[in-house]
Amino acid sequence: MAAFLIPWLRMKGIEVMQVYGRNTDKARGLGKYQEIPWTDKLEDLMQDADLYILAVADEAIPGLGSRLHDCRGIVAHTSGAVPLDALSSCPHHGVFYPVQTVGQYPLPRVEDIPVCVEGADEKDTLALKGLAERMSERALILDSKQRLHLHLAAVLVNNFTNHLYARAGALLKREGLPFDLLHPLLLRTAELACRSEAATLQTGPALRGDEATIRRHLTVLRDDPTLEGLYVILTQAIREMAENQA
Amino acid sequence: MAAFLIPWLRMKGIEVMQVYGRNTDKARGLGKYQEIPWTDKLEDLMQDADLYILAVADEAIPGLGSRLHDCRGIVAHTSGAVPLDALSSCPHHGVFYPVQTVGQYPLPRVEDIPVCVEGADEKDTLALKGLAERMSERALILDSKQRLHLHLAAVLVNNFTNHLYARAGALLKREGLPFDLLHPLLLRTAELACRSEAATLQTGPALRGDEATIRRHLTVLRDDPTLEGLYVILTQAIREMAENQA
Repeated sequence: MAAFLIPWLRMKGIEVMQVYGRNTDKARGLGKYQEIPWTDKLEDLMQDADLYILAVADEAIPGLGSRLHDCRGIVAHTSGAVPLDALSSCPHHGVFYPVQTVGQYPLPRVEDIPVCVEGADEKDTLALKGLAERMSERALILDSKQRLHLHLAAVLVNNFTNHLYARAGALLKREGLPFDLLHPLLLRTAELACRSEAATLQTGPALRGDEATIRRHLTVLRDDPTLEGLYVILTQAIREMAENQA
Repeated sequence: MAAFLIPWLRMKGIEVMQVYGRNTDKARGLGKYQEIPWTDKLEDLMQDADLYILAVADEAIPGLGSRLHDCRGIVAHTSGAVPLDALSSCPHHGVFYPVQTVGQYPLPRVEDIPVCVEGADEKDTLALKGLAERMSERALILDSKQRLHLHLAAVLVNNFTNHLYARAGALLKREGLPFDLLHPLLLRTAELACRSEAATLQTGPALRGDEATIRRHLTVLRDDPTLEGLYVILTQAIREMAENQA
């Protein structure tokens, strides 16, 4: 996340004063690569920054926050799932959550990435919103409950969808078929869902109640209980949603 | 499927001699719109075609095939899940399966759509392959077992993925949030899976074994047992795949 945020911030003319990292090699690597002062000692942290962004693992947020209780700038984490009050030990605190998967190339167009902010008070919120607006065309204020819903929804369309791609690839590999046979279909599925509501685009044997096809698919899945379980529950879930809409 | 195939065939210079449909209105509509002779009477079917494409529901294939047993041309269905031998009542028969979701606009670039063919004998297979090669840059011969695997994999990346998009949209709606917050993420997820193997791109709380985030997500899902069930089984499936790869 830090390696993604630092060039983004600088590209938008925002000064990154210092990099701190507990891991010396990583902190040095990031600092040298980006040509920014770096440290692995929290006591050397510059005291006059407007903002301290904690681009760390979720579970590290409260502990690191409690060590930054003297900071006069805003201390903000970047997690979708961690509530604002995980940083309540800091007088000024908040959240700066970009809705995107980082660490893969090619990088996305950063201006398209929604950035969701939340602050301990109105002043912190507006400061974070101002930063988000400089960085993205899509800056919005979400409370912790909304952000958790968004993060969960992101898991559905990113982690879970990617897992379905991986399972599909494994199925094809069993038959000696390349995954790129599915590229046009999976890209179009994603593109159509950005043009119309996905619930109205649903097709397939589950929606049609096409038992013959479902039985044929289940014969393929006989030796794969996990994927069989996924298949059955997703088939039921599609039917249930269709019935609730009918 | 017929409304999708007819313009595609003609665009590639392949003559479509006639449209037959059991439903008079639909047959007339298709014929008039495409300016092709049409009939709703099977006894009026032209006898001298090289190919009869059955763009019909899976369950209608064997019955319609048995009524076409006198055709000297190849009788082919377009289904991913129905075996070749569903048409064994016809002396020349086969399968012409385009791997794409039809019936939604904008239409995809047709030359990118993989077309999978299978014929009752080598001559039928090569005739169907020749047609597929005129229509697409991606023509390949698959047997019925391979095609069923591909169709199942297509259900995973199209129907099931679309359902996850729909569930994500419903989650956001509960909090008054628009689905387009997820557009950049879901598009990038799809694009990355077309550049690298999806199994190597997996991220998220399930892969990390991040129990705190999973617990937070499950609190959101308390009132939604179906999505909760989906969440739990997909989380387990991601872990299982990671363990099998480790």
